Amino acid sequence: MSAAPLAPLSLADVARVVGGTLVGDGARVLRGISTLDRAGEDELTFLSSARYAKELLASNAGAVLVTPDLAEAPGRCGNRVVVAKPHEAMLKLLPQFYRMPERPFVGVHPTAVVAPDAVVDPDACIEAFVVVKPGARIGKGSWIGPHCLVGEGVTVGADCRLVNQVTLYPGSALGDRVILHAGVRIGSDGYGYVFQGGTHQKIPHVGRCVLGNDIEIGANSTVDRGSLDATMIGDGTKIDNLVHIGHNCRVGRLVLMMAGVAIAGSVRVEDGVVIAGQVGIAGHVTIGTRATLAAQAGVIGDVPAGETWGGYPARPHKDVLRGYAAMKRLPELLKRIDRLLGREPGA
Amino acid sequence: MSAAPLAPLSLADVARVVGGTLVGDGARVLRGISTLDRAGEDELTFLSSARYAKELLASNAGAVLVTPDLAEAPGRCGNRVVVAKPHEAMLKLLPQFYRMPERPFVGVHPTAVVAPDAVVDPDACIEAFVVVKPGARIGKGSWIGPHCLVGEGVTVGADCRLVNQVTLYPGSALGDRVILHAGVRIGSDGYGYVFQGGTHQKIPHVGRCVLGNDIEIGANSTVDRGSLDATMIGDGTKIDNLVHIGHNCRVGRLVLMMAGVAIAGSVRVEDGVVIAGQVGIAGHVTIGTRATLAAQAGVIGDVPAGETWGGYPARPHKDVLRGYAAMKRLPELLKRIDRLLGREPGA
Amino acid sequence: MSAAPLAPLSLADVARVVGGTLVGDGARVLRGISTLDRAGEDELTFLSSARYAKELLASNAGAVLVTPDLAEAPGRCGNRVVVAKPHEAMLKLLPQFYRMPERPFVGVHPTAVVAPDAVVDPDACIEAFVVVKPGARIGKGSWIGPHCLVGEGVTVGADCRLVNQVTLYPGSALGDRVILHAGVRIGSDGYGYVFQGGTHQKIPHVGRCVLGNDIEIGANSTVDRGSLDATMIGDGTKIDNLVHIGHNCRVGRLVLMMAGVAIAGSVRVEDGVVIAGQVGIAGHVTIGTRATLAAQAGVIGDVPAGETWGGYPARPHKDVLRGYAAMKRLPELLKRIDRLLGREPGA
Repeated sequence: MSAAPLAPLSLADVARVVGGTLVGDGARVLRGISTLDRAGEDELTFLSSARYAKELLASNAGAVLVTPDLAEAPGRCGNRVVVAKPHEAMLKLLPQFYRMPERPFVGVHPTAVVAPDAVVDPDACIEAFVVVKPGARIGKGSWIGPHCLVGEGVTVGADCRLVNQVTLYPGSALGDRVILHAGVRIGSDGYGYVFQGGTHQKIPHVGRCVLGNDIEIGANSTVDRGSLDATMIGDGTKIDNLVHIGHNCRVGRLVLMMAGVAIAGSVRVEDGVVIAGQVGIAGHVTIGTRATLAAQAGVIGDVPAGETWGGYPARPHKDVLRGYAAMKRLPELLKRIDRLLGREPGA
Repeated sequence: MSAAPLAPLSLADVARVVGGTLVGDGARVLRGISTLDRAGEDELTFLSSARYAKELLASNAGAVLVTPDLAEAPGRCGNRVVVAKPHEAMLKLLPQFYRMPERPFVGVHPTAVVAPDAVVDPDACIEAFVVVKPGARIGKGSWIGPHCLVGEGVTVGADCRLVNQVTLYPGSALGDRVILHAGVRIGSDGYGYVFQGGTHQKIPHVGRCVLGNDIEIGANSTVDRGSLDATMIGDGTKIDNLVHIGHNCRVGRLVLMMAGVAIAGSVRVEDGVVIAGQVGIAGHVTIGTRATLAAQAGVIGDVPAGETWGGYPARPHKDVLRGYAAMKRLPELLKRIDRLLGREPGA
Repeated sequence: MSAAPLAPLSLADVARVVGGTLVGDGARVLRGISTLDRAGEDELTFLSSARYAKELLASNAGAVLVTPDLAEAPGRCGNRVVVAKPHEAMLKLLPQFYRMPERPFVGVHPTAVVAPDAVVDPDACIEAFVVVKPGARIGKGSWIGPHCLVGEGVTVGADCRLVNQVTLYPGSALGDRVILHAGVRIGSDGYGYVFQGGTHQKIPHVGRCVLGNDIEIGANSTVDRGSLDATMIGDGTKIDNLVHIGHNCRVGRLVLMMAGVAIAGSVRVEDGVVIAGQVGIAGHVTIGTRATLAAQAGVIGDVPAGETWGGYPARPHKDVLRGYAAMKRLPELLKRIDRLLGREPGA
């Protein structure tokens, strides 16, 4: 998360770190990683598909990670490291070139307000202006950024990170290695009312909000607590910014949700589902294992496992595509029909 | 909002609290309330419709609230309390089983920064790291959670609750019993610019943002202040998470808005309107009393009172349904037409 | 942003300030500005189009700013100031009638936590509970509202305003005169994962988030940092509430984006583009200079400069309109076709 550079590496160092074959000047000094079109003479870049080979021609990069089949691809930059998977090699190199975000200290900042009976692991980091309520537990290695609220009876596992201004409502529970970005709200009351006596009476929400391990949730997203049951999110699920997940939802493992998704209450999202941006899902439906929902889909019924659905109301994506194609032809068609029917006796 | 359980109740206690008829073991000890499929032997559940009678068969619940006509419905659990409205009885029991959210103290936390001329009722609760600006007034029984900002000249009525990290911009006004969840922003500047001298010049927003009584607004929602006039929200209106309401809007009483709704400026939403998730409404239109907008509708003109509209551009829902049905038939139809026109001389 | 009124003005004062021609009672005392239908006897209003002349008839305003051609328009209010552009004149008068938001003090609030090596201009204002991390720089005249986080190595230019609870992730950079409303998150990690070893591995984001001058971003909007490259927003661009901008995006100058827009990663939005509410844009596309995207459009490919596109998948707006018109006729058409084909031998 920090772009602060560390010490430079030579190209020979790079080849060694990624276990690749050096071509060209091993003494070449590199200070960072960039894209093909933007890399400068002291930067490394990568080429993982012949599709971008043309960009290599014009690249000013100091060195390039390439696949074996592109080792000889023409380009002004002759300094190369040949590896099977340049993109993965690049990920491995990032922590060599850039300082990864790390905790500024271990312990509790003097301005934080921590309830006497909260249990904060001595190895946790609690930053300035954090509030930790009674009965909360925060695990080893976790990092609670400035201005977060850890509500009553909340449990935060080990090695979690709450970046800034995160709210954990009472009774929420996080597993280990959970990352919550700035402004995430976990366990807010669900949207539930009963119309009684001429007004909408609030249904008290006594369910919890339970997150597994290795979850990441993007800035300003919200996950409501359950009404009676818990809202649950499974291990390894990754959620983008400004996403809403309603009360009582059960989201499985390794699910991906892009920005702007809104999921109503009591929805079941099974393992490995992929939900593209701005999709909406109505209450009480099930999205089957490994299904994919196309951007802006409006889902009002169950989606079978493994299928790709889109449109509103959502239906199989191939039907959506056929519909769009037909729609395009429609104005022309109407003219032809009018002509035809004009000729047709009695039409 | 807290799932912390209180003392257990016997089934006889339950029958007494809800004024129902006891069937079975009145000494049965119950520690909580859950759904039919999840309730355990020490939990109460409820059955309010014959539709779920099958779930009762397999339920492990310790006792069930049932309607008179379902009093004898088959199920392994014979401990029952018969009442006219099980769902309402359940709501009445929630505060018996679970501790409802309550203020941790009365008064002003020592870390809060309160302007000398702000008027905070002695019975209000101002939590840690709250900022209250000059001229603000906070009423009796109100609860301002950690890290909230109560801007200059803001008035907060009685028994309000600002959960955490709520922003009230200067001049905003809340009635009584208003609940604002974490990250709600009230009275932010509206989106208004005049293109002058080659740039977008900001229109200063001097209007206010005025909320009535008994309003609830979900996490990370935003309501802009008016430009000249006020933005207003009426009594008893309930708004979900991540909703946007633009400048100068007039939202009536008892309106419901689900997550992800975005309303542009100067829109009039009359009493009792229901707006489903991710609906968008263009500026300066009126949504008539008790109209309903279906999920993801894109409204670009007035909607008559009492009608249900959907689609983009929004139109009466029955037209939307007819359109979808026709769309579905379209690809087949095109084939038939092509065949037909192929035969038609001169087509 | 504050509705607090200043001293009243006479109508003669008003005429002088806007350089207009006085008609009627120059001694008339005015205490504020309002709309035609709401202005009272001590308020000024304005009429800039014959379209609203009917509202003038019934207006109770104390005085009216009018264009020369409407100087004689009938209405009960005879006190008028004639100017070429009443709306612009009104903007000029706003700061005469209302106190504009201003910094409560200059310097650093005693509760703020500022790193020793951060460089805060002596003329900046750092409010309560702000955290400024090591290596940050905050320019002259800037105003950092309560509970903001200015991350490590961030630069904030001159005369910026961060209203409340804004997060600037490490390495972000703002130009001059940038306004960020409550809950804005700048430089959060982009949504990027590689599926390796059965899980989604996070791609570290080492790119920055760089904002130019004169940008305004609405409440609870989010702009992700780049993965390798920076995410960039150009001078004079104005963004509404609850907007998401993904990693590596390049947003040009003078762009307008309304509420609820979600833009995926690596999108190029060129100068002067206008994006209406709830539009979604897929990754890696380009929106050409001065293009307009209609509300709720779903853009999955490049949009040519200067064109207006809408619908899903987005296409030229005139095609969208033709499609809607055809859709409307479709159910009727189907009936006619059925009738026709029923008569057609062999159909």
